[in-house]
Amino acid sequence: MHFHDNQRKVDYVLAYHYRKRGAHLGHGSPGHSLAVISNGETGKERQAGGPGDIELGPLDALEEQRREQREEFESNLMAAGLELEKDLESKNQGSVFVRIHAPWQVLAREAEFLKIKVPTKKMYEIKAGGSIAKKFNAVLQKLSSPLQPKVPEHSNNRMKNLSYPFSREKMYLYNIQEKDSFFDNATRSRIVHEILKRTACSRANNTMGINSLIANNIYEAAYPLHDGEYDSPGDDMNDRKLLYQEWARYGVFYKFQPIDLIRKYFGEKIGLYFAWLGLYTSFLIPSSVIGVIVFLYGCATIEEDIPSKEMCDQQNAFTMCPLCDKSCDYWNLSSACGTARASHLFDNPATVFFSIFMALWATMFLENWKRLQMRLGYFWDLTGIEEEEVSSLEHSRPEYETKVREKMLKENDKSVDDDEDKLTWKDRFPGYLMNFASILFMITLTFSIVFGVIVYRITTAAALSLNKATRSNVRVTVTATAVIINLVVILILDEIYGAVAKWLTKIEVPKTEQTFEERLILKAFLLKFVNAYSPIFYVAFFKGRFVGRPGSYVYVFDGYRMEECAPGGCLMELCIQLSIIMLGKQLIQNNIFEIGVPKLKKLFRKLKDETEPGEADPEHSKHPEQWDLDYSLEPYTGLTPEYMEMIIQFGFVTLFVASFPLAPVFALLNNVIEVRLDAKKFVTELRRPDAVRTKDIGIWFDILSGIGKFSVIINAFVIAVTSDFIPRLVYQYSYSHNGTLHGFVNHTLSFFNVSQLKEGTQPENSQFDQEVQFCRFKDYREPPWAPNPYEFSKQYWSVLSARLAFVIIFQNLVMFMSVLVDWMIPDIPTDISDQIKKEKSLLVDFFLKEEHEKLKLTDEPAQRSQGGGDRSRRSRATSSAPSGPSPTGSRASSASQHTNV
Amino acid sequence: MHFHDNQRKVDYVLAYHYRKRGAHLGHGSPGHSLAVISNGETGKERQAGGPGDIELGPLDALEEQRREQREEFESNLMAAGLELEKDLESKNQGSVFVRIHAPWQVLAREAEFLKIKVPTKKMYEIKAGGSIAKKFNAVLQKLSSPLQPKVPEHSNNRMKNLSYPFSREKMYLYNIQEKDSFFDNATRSRIVHEILKRTACSRANNTMGINSLIANNIYEAAYPLHDGEYDSPGDDMNDRKLLYQEWARYGVFYKFQPIDLIRKYFGEKIGLYFAWLGLYTSFLIPSSVIGVIVFLYGCATIEEDIPSKEMCDQQNAFTMCPLCDKSCDYWNLSSACGTARASHLFDNPATVFFSIFMALWATMFLENWKRLQMRLGYFWDLTGIEEEEVSSLEHSRPEYETKVREKMLKENDKSVDDDEDKLTWKDRFPGYLMNFASILFMITLTFSIVFGVIVYRITTAAALSLNKATRSNVRVTVTATAVIINLVVILILDEIYGAVAKWLTKIEVPKTEQTFEERLILKAFLLKFVNAYSPIFYVAFFKGRFVGRPGSYVYVFDGYRMEECAPGGCLMELCIQLSIIMLGKQLIQNNIFEIGVPKLKKLFRKLKDETEPGEADPEHSKHPEQWDLDYSLEPYTGLTPEYMEMIIQFGFVTLFVASFPLAPVFALLNNVIEVRLDAKKFVTELRRPDAVRTKDIGIWFDILSGIGKFSVIINAFVIAVTSDFIPRLVYQYSYSHNGTLHGFVNHTLSFFNVSQLKEGTQPENSQFDQEVQFCRFKDYREPPWAPNPYEFSKQYWSVLSARLAFVIIFQNLVMFMSVLVDWMIPDIPTDISDQIKKEKSLLVDFFLKEEHEKLKLTDEPAQRSQGGGDRSRRSRATSSAPSGPSPTGSRASSASQHTNV
Repeated sequence: MHFHDNQRKVDYVLAYHYRKRGAHLGHGSPGHSLAVISNGETGKERQAGGPGDIELGPLDALEEQRREQREEFESNLMAAGLELEKDLESKNQGSVFVRIHAPWQVLAREAEFLKIKVPTKKMYEIKAGGSIAKKFNAVLQKLSSPLQPKVPEHSNNRMKNLSYPFSREKMYLYNIQEKDSFFDNATRSRIVHEILKRTACSRANNTMGINSLIANNIYEAAYPLHDGEYDSPGDDMNDRKLLYQEWARYGVFYKFQPIDLIRKYFGEKIGLYFAWLGLYTSFLIPSSVIGVIVFLYGCATIEEDIPSKEMCDQQNAFTMCPLCDKSCDYWNLSSACGTARASHLFDNPATVFFSIFMALWATMFLENWKRLQMRLGYFWDLTGIEEEEVSSLEHSRPEYETKVREKMLKENDKSVDDDEDKLTWKDRFPGYLMNFASILFMITLTFSIVFGVIVYRITTAAALSLNKATRSNVRVTVTATAVIINLVVILILDEIYGAVAKWLTKIEVPKTEQTFEERLILKAFLLKFVNAYSPIFYVAFFKGRFVGRPGSYVYVFDGYRMEECAPGGCLMELCIQLSIIMLGKQLIQNNIFEIGVPKLKKLFRKLKDETEPGEADPEHSKHPEQWDLDYSLEPYTGLTPEYMEMIIQFGFVTLFVASFPLAPVFALLNNVIEVRLDAKKFVTELRRPDAVRTKDIGIWFDILSGIGKFSVIINAFVIAVTSDFIPRLVYQYSYSHNGTLHGFVNHTLSFFNVSQLKEGTQPENSQFDQEVQFCRFKDYREPPWAPNPYEFSKQYWSVLSARLAFVIIFQNLVMFMSVLVDWMIPDIPTDISDQIKKEKSLLVDFFLKEEHEKLKLTDEPAQRSQGGGDRSRRSRATSSAPSGPSPTGSRASSASQHTNV
Repeated sequence: MHFHDNQRKVDYVLAYHYRKRGAHLGHGSPGHSLAVISNGETGKERQAGGPGDIELGPLDALEEQRREQREEFESNLMAAGLELEKDLESKNQGSVFVRIHAPWQVLAREAEFLKIKVPTKKMYEIKAGGSIAKKFNAVLQKLSSPLQPKVPEHSNNRMKNLSYPFSREKMYLYNIQEKDSFFDNATRSRIVHEILKRTACSRANNTMGINSLIANNIYEAAYPLHDGEYDSPGDDMNDRKLLYQEWARYGVFYKFQPIDLIRKYFGEKIGLYFAWLGLYTSFLIPSSVIGVIVFLYGCATIEEDIPSKEMCDQQNAFTMCPLCDKSCDYWNLSSACGTARASHLFDNPATVFFSIFMALWATMFLENWKRLQMRLGYFWDLTGIEEEEVSSLEHSRPEYETKVREKMLKENDKSVDDDEDKLTWKDRFPGYLMNFASILFMITLTFSIVFGVIVYRITTAAALSLNKATRSNVRVTVTATAVIINLVVILILDEIYGAVAKWLTKIEVPKTEQTFEERLILKAFLLKFVNAYSPIFYVAFFKGRFVGRPGSYVYVFDGYRMEECAPGGCLMELCIQLSIIMLGKQLIQNNIFEIGVPKLKKLFRKLKDETEPGEADPEHSKHPEQWDLDYSLEPYTGLTPEYMEMIIQFGFVTLFVASFPLAPVFALLNNVIEVRLDAKKFVTELRRPDAVRTKDIGIWFDILSGIGKFSVIINAFVIAVTSDFIPRLVYQYSYSHNGTLHGFVNHTLSFFNVSQLKEGTQPENSQFDQEVQFCRFKDYREPPWAPNPYEFSKQYWSVLSARLAFVIIFQNLVMFMSVLVDWMIPDIPTDISDQIKKEKSLLVDFFLKEEHEKLKLTDEPAQRSQGGGDRSRRSRATSSAPSGPSPTGSRASSASQHTNV
């Protein structure tokens, strides 16, 4: 954790591989000595090997070039004030760790540039509402105390330090007890990282920053150090161990997350992710409860549902038209009793209520997230950081710079004067075109796979129904296998699309890290969204709508009829589809991709290490240093996959909630595990990420709110089009004789004259054959005896009008309510905005007081020379003592004293 | 413009009325001398009258109290460093002007507190895109040069000063040539206003700031001075005169606005208003052009419109059912030929296109406004001002403080410890209730007036149709008079509602000025919106829908049939309604309320002044000082009415654009005048407003974007429900035999068997009597010979489905396109974001350079003592000279030199 002098803390580590070829150690220019390896006590000369003048192989030349670049970079770092330590390159090849320490003056200078807010001496009490709210809070705190993680509070919970951007001129403001520990580890490594990013290396094609050097393989890795080991025995506590014990174990799944500690250790960006995940998970609790209640309501009312009773009633004996040509017989509707009853579980009025609830829930969630974000921003001193935050992400990406350089080289003789330092639209066009084409191709691919599965279903169903033995459970077999195929395809494509999106974004060569991230996210989101949801959309809105009618069915591929939904409605199938894809995706992705694959990787690496034991340093492996340990961990690659997984899940929870009210429950169960899984990954399996300051979760919020809005219209359509809710309502209020649903089933079934069945499609070997004159089918069409038989009937159009009217009303009503909720809940919690105001005025007071005291201490001349030259002093005959004891009074007085000395 | 010493500039003026009662001048405590009237050369003693010990009347006591409060306040101002000058209270009563001057050290101190950004010495070039863009810009500039106002540029247009918040410690950064003119007038008055707002006056119930004192009548007015006279003869130029000549005259209506000068003179808030108004007006140009084209398309295709030709065709001879009971006869549809042809002007497919265009136009406008706002924010150095801006609006309102004090007094014995310093929900409840009730009442009032006009129309129409002579033009008479009644009511209620909204907001006692403004705007907007649009909504969506059918008409009030639309459809009437209300409102409000009323007020005041000539100072009236002149102007009362007028107009332009494509043209014509009218008002008729810094137009943007969204659904419904677009489409593609609209009119008319007319409603003295067996009416109903006569037919339901489907498709498509446009156009223009980035890096460089130079100049000890205590210096064996010539390199080097000296 420290340099060899055991005093200077290691703030950052750069790692690289070196290799020497036998005797010729190839130093290039021996004059260039890496002069400043400042490991005080050892101080050995590095130039152990003689200067090699044997000619170098191409590999060696590259190696030599890299060494020079490293040397220049490191000397530039030292010029910037950083202190470096590294081990000797004693062996033929191996890893070298360059440890970096930032001394106080560098920290102070950079903190001032970066406007890092640090606590001042001044503390103030945070007011907690009225007396009732106070008592309520106390009770709540007592009740929730077993759920609180056992993390030592940084300070009194009810007091907060005033913060102010660090300034070397105002050192007296801050409570600097020890300079070594004034900035915490995350801040220190952030500062070093900032320097690393902007230090240039002229030899390496003038690239800027460590990221380019890593991209060019000059260094292999750059990472800050973990605080220690998370599973070390004994009582010595560090933040990492604390996080492991109180957060990153499944055993503590019921506890709140120690968000402040997470932020302190990993920085704001990761802190916000876990805060977001925590809020999302806790918001899933009420929706799970209501979802379960809605489901139970469906279970409870299953016996009272008249349509399903009528369907199950053997006496009604609706003779239905055959489901396939020739081999299928007429059938009795009561044989579909089971699915009818099952679909009532999800197709009842409570789901309409539930989908309205969930739309508002999504809005509430987003609003509360905004509030929590503001609250965290306040406690983490993030208010007003945007400028600085942006700048840290604005460094051009190394790939972009390379491209620009290439362009400049190419156009050198063309004498283009203006555009040479950036890529124009023309340069980017191939990339964009490629992107567009690939995305189009992949979406087409997804659709064709969905279509392929449909074809599979149609053909398999037709094949199976030829065989009498399998005919009975055709539907179950076909549906189940098709969904599993869908699931597998989704999982595979998900991984492929993730990689493809990355590749496409690289082709696009975005200028900054931020644009890179945003474009990557958008592309990945688009592809993964289409991938995960297209089979579901098909079942919800298209399946069973292009069937045609008896006598003129729609055929695809030489005589296969388009598939229909089960007699209970498509909603049931939608529900099956949804639940299998959602559960399967979560279980498999969690187990295989998040637990299994990292374990495999670890195993693989271990095996590899064991096969190459020759270079292993026995001394090191016994007591490995922290940088060795961290080096063996996986590098941190960003939060995108974590967010993406959750966003897709959010889609499952909101988009089709009308058809699957249990989705929130499953999401909740998944997320309770997910939180700890992610936590474990960050604490134990990844190198420590750079602490990135950010105020919000960026583009994810927009995506979430987009999904929330989209879900309104999707749910409106699911209820109106997929479910039987509207036809029932129309029947009840317009056609029913007694205002009940009795006769509804009969009403939804049209008549068909079997004599009009096309030649060759009549059922063979029918049991009904002789007596059947009319068979029934589910549609609103004119009966055979009407003047225009089989046209859509008036009922069809009136039900359609009702469905569409419902969509309009539902969509606009829910949107309006969402806007209202959005408007009613202020984005900034009242107490926080009060605190911010208070903090601002306290800051001014505190400032003036400190300034005043400082003036008293220092001598006056400097002051006089500064304040001199104003000829208006003569006019101020009396600077009579100010009167009021109010803060403004004292403020005015101190100011006037200031100007009068 | 200056104090009597002709040196110190008057930055602010406080005005109050005083009155002395005869001999007893009532000084209260003679020890309190207003010691500091710093008008250098005169220096008269103010205590001319003897100290009065005659007892004071109640009026005098109040007067005395006020005097004391003024004295205290003024001495507090002086304690804060301001310099005051006022005239003697020589006469028995009159106005006294307290002139305030802010000396340099006060300005410097406050500028630092307020973080006012000022230009530094460093300038840099603003890059203007590539070479093609440059040339294009140059051409554009040449072309538009006659449109450019002749205002001297502050500086080179292609250079910009780096700005940095003022800091007394960094004076070397700024280009301070003369301290008197470093801060411009607007900034100076803003600083003084800031001090005035926060200076306490303990005698006046401890109130804070000048606003409370004005509210309590202790002062009468407080205003900064105008720069001079706008119509002074001669060549001496000041900003006000310049503004008048180049902006605030009708003669320059074709020119661009000199936005930068407006901002410099009036501050950012008013500058943004005019920038917004200008952008809105220029955006109206394309929409006007397209609107006119759409209208002309309607005119051009009028001869080809098959339905109106069919209606006009005498041969068709559709015998229509009578329009009223008894007195009306059957009539021939061809007699309504005129209205049918007229309604084609507005009811054609081009309007569908136009309303989609306008929805996107609204989005584009808002997006471009965001961009312009960012651009102005950049050039006006508003980036990152939010914190400070908020604080200036966060002062509690005097009314709020009074209320809190009252509450504290009342609850003094109840020992409530916590809530005493703010109003709880319980205290506010009566206010909220009153608000809610009043708003509800006023909305009901509006609705009942609309209903009253309907009743007027029904009864008048019935009365007129009894008389044969008037029968022919019943519809025209009734419609015209009703619309004019509506218009007058709207105009009157508009004024009333404005006042009521203000009163209601006062009752609510919001805490800060900002909440006050926002709530007032919301209330006023709600009331005015409902007022202006409810008659239009009625015509668009409700008129003619509750008529019933022949044989069972809907009656209101004993036998008056509900009103129907003209045979050409309701769209024609909607168009008339819209155009009259919009034009009438604009013309009358502009002419009467914005030109007439101020003139009347001025006249009235002049008359009043002439009737009270006794106190007039003959000397003053000859050469009145600027403060006298300004005092005689109207006080500035905020931008709310100006914005409100424009927002309501924006509603006319977007909400019903499907029915009135000429709305943008009229809006454009109005706005060209409106800009100069408002400009004139600000330059010539109002006291100079306080310069308020703000980044955006606040809540107005939300309202605009709300209207934009609302307009999508309204236009969808207008096209689907009010116009005949959908029925024609349905007829053409589903019912027509040859795909044309031939037979459409016949298809829309249902049959009615006249023998089924209710007894007593048959037409008397019919010309048709003998031969009529069936009459026709406009509806989709089953014919009399169907099994269920007069029920809605299948056509009805299919057309309804099509209408609703259109609404869904239109709404979601347009919303999606808007989101896309919103997303595609970045909120920050690329060049501006590049400039901001560049500015940021330049700032850092500039800083380091200046710091470096400063270090060279000053001596070292101070530096050493500050930078000392770091034990890590020993480790830095070589601080080798930095290599790269890149900015980062030099930055690092200067920083290292800094820490090494």
